[in-house]
Formats: sequence, structure tokens, C-alpha cells
Amino acid sequence: MHVVVNAATSADGKLSSRRREQIAISGEADFARVDRLRADSDAVVVGVGTVTADDPHLTVKDSALCEQRRERGDPAQPARVVVDSSGKTPVDAEILDDAATTYVCVSDRASRTRREKLAERATVVVAGEERVDLTAAFDELEADGCEQVMVEGGGELIFSLIEAGLVDELRVFVGPKLIGGRDAPTLADGEGFVADFPSLALESLERVDDGVLLRWVVED
Amino acid sequence: MHVVVNAATSADGKLSSRRREQIAISGEADFARVDRLRADSDAVVVGVGTVTADDPHLTVKDSALCEQRRERGDPAQPARVVVDSSGKTPVDAEILDDAATTYVCVSDRASRTRREKLAERATVVVAGEERVDLTAAFDELEADGCEQVMVEGGGELIFSLIEAGLVDELRVFVGPKLIGGRDAPTLADGEGFVADFPSLALESLERVDDGVLLRWVVED
Repeated sequence: MHVVVNAATSADGKLSSRRREQIAISGEADFARVDRLRADSDAVVVGVGTVTADDPHLTVKDSALCEQRRERGDPAQPARVVVDSSGKTPVDAEILDDAATTYVCVSDRASRTRREKLAERATVVVAGEERVDLTAAFDELEADGCEQVMVEGGGELIFSLIEAGLVDELRVFVGPKLIGGRDAPTLADGEGFVADFPSLALESLERVDDGVLLRWVVED
Repeated sequence: MHVVVNAATSADGKLSSRRREQIAISGEADFARVDRLRADSDAVVVGVGTVTADDPHLTVKDSALCEQRRERGDPAQPARVVVDSSGKTPVDAEILDDAATTYVCVSDRASRTRREKLAERATVVVAGEERVDLTAAFDELEADGCEQVMVEGGGELIFSLIEAGLVDELRVFVGPKLIGGRDAPTLADGEGFVADFPSLALESLERVDDGVLLRWVVED
């Protein structure tokens, strides 16, 4: 499995404001790049915080890209995955519509009622006690054929995945805005590291829209 | 007055870990760049949080650069400035030694005792009631001949300066590390913006050490 984190941050490393409202950080060239990256993925993953804040659809928008997927024998849309320890994804979330297969990864903490509700609209993966065991959950996704996986946030999930050693690459569009805020979500939140900080290698940098796209490879 | 913020962040926008310990993010080429930028400045500014966390000296390290300053009629070292609303800078802080002129900017909240203690080692600038009035304090610095001003952090001061419209440029070295942490200090902390996010223009980008140096100009 190859896991790529993709995100857009402000020049000060924020994913959104402290109110968690979505902010237009990138532009059309970056949107098109993200759409292609989705189309090249078997699954697109987000944390439940992103679902409740943004209610994303996570589908490939360009129909030509969907057609290319079909031609190579893939479903028109990549699978969507929510990491949601307590199973609180709203049943009317966009991510649970019938545009694509969806997985909801929960822990033992998710009630039977919630699991049953979610199972009406998604494949429920149970892994871990209090929090989703990401390694086990990603193993299940891989067993289901998810080889190329894209993670779109938020910062809590991204940190947990890095901590679990599951991330191979980060593609970060850094845009020409300042958001600020000690409580605003950042690219990697969670508890944070205090030693043995993961090392990256800067694979490439290029101007995209009015910002810069940085590609980092996570070193072993 | 021209104000440049200079900082090194991890790939996820952090200045240090949640423990506020300094982390080697950049390398020798960036250290040399920062030293040159200090040598080109009339004053180097930090917040008191940076003083208590790192106890920086903030002097130009390369004696050839100091010599060039002397040759053009400047003091060998740029002035050092601490923004310190309550006047809590320790009297044995490195920044208060006699290697360079130092200003401590306090608000009315700083006690007479603290002001007197600090005045033995620095020029005390009083501006603002509860917090330092940055515009007034920077006006005093300018009246004292500080035209080129460099700000080295931390994230609370940087946010306040941006909010006050005092920042002209940001030079951010983004290094090949992940720090993570929802409580780790970032390039711009404070309350954060929730609307009217300041816009930047990406002036240049270049590989430096194992990271990238981004130069952003703050747009009006």
C-alpha cells in the first residue's frame, strides 16, 4: 500500500481558521491536481472531524478522469473512507451517498446502533478499542484492493497516521494567505512529537496557482 | 520602516514542539542567511516567550559582517528588542548582556520595580495599557533610527504584528521534519483571523539546506 497525504495550508501551516470553516487557499490548477490525484487513488480517506466540519463528497469531479478509471477496469470513483472511532458520521453525510463505495472505520467504542445505521450505507470496519487501530484498518482496506491511498485530512488523522508509520508521502500546497490562531487546525495536530521527529526528503517544489506545491517523502 | 519576519518551521508549520524546546530544523546555509539578515538589520525583535524558552543572544555571529557594519558607520551589532508586556524578561537573560543595545518594550502593566530593574540593562519603552501597543513601540524604535527591522518570533508576536499591519515581508525556511501537535507553537498563533485573511504574494522560492526558503510579501 502507498499512502499519500494531500493538503492545502496557509503560509503559516493552517488547514482552516479556528472556527474550522473552509477557506479558499488554492486555486483552479491545484483543484485539478487534487482531482487527478483522487482519480489515481483506490481510496480517499478523511477523519470524521473533516466530515462534520466540511461535509465533503470526496469524488472525482472530472468525468474524463472517471471514464479513464472505467477503461482500466476500476470503478468510476475511488472508495471513500472515514476514520470515525465512535461512529458519529451523520447518516445524511455526503460521503455516505451512493456516488461511490464508502468505508467507515470505527473502534469498539461505536455503539451497535450506530454501526447498524452506518452499515446501511457503508462497509463498517471495526478495528481497535478506544480509537481506530489505523494499521489494522488499513490492512483491511488493502485486503479489499486499496493499494493507492490518498489522505485528505484533517490534522488529527494525519498526525495519527504519521505516528503509526503509515504515511509514505506528503503533498502540501502552501498558499498565499495568513490564517493564524493557536487553536486553528494545522497539517499535523494530535499530541505531537517531542523527540525522534520524523524526517522528510523534499522531492520537488513548484509554483502552482499563487502558492507552492511541496512534495515530501517520509524517510524510514 | 521595513519589517521582515524570519522563521524556520517544520513541514507542518511548527516553530518547535509542544514542549517549546528548540529543534534543529535548518542547517548551515540557513544559519548563514539568518546571520546576514541580522547584519542587514537595525534591530532584531523577539517576544518574551522566545526569551524565556530559548534565551537567545540575537547577535550577528560572523565577525566579518560586524566589521562591515562598523565600516558603514553602524554599531557592530544591531539593536535587540524584546516585546514584554509585563516586563518579566529575566535580568540575566542573554539578550540583556552588553554585546549590543537592547530595548525592552513593556505596557503599563509592568511594575515600577521591574521597569527599574530592566532599565539598568536596557532602554525601556512603555507603550500600551494591558499589552504592548506595537504600533507606538515600533514608532519609538523608528524615531531611534531603526529602519530595517527583523522579527525572529515567536508565533504570538508574529500574529500580533501581522494583525497590527506592521509586517512587510515573511521569509520562512520550511524544513524536512514533522513536529505535529495541536499545542505546538506555529508561525502565527494568537487568536487567529476568521475573516479578511491577509493576502501574500510569493516573491521567491529556493532550495536551502534540505528544505525550502519561501519569501512572501504582505499585500495591502
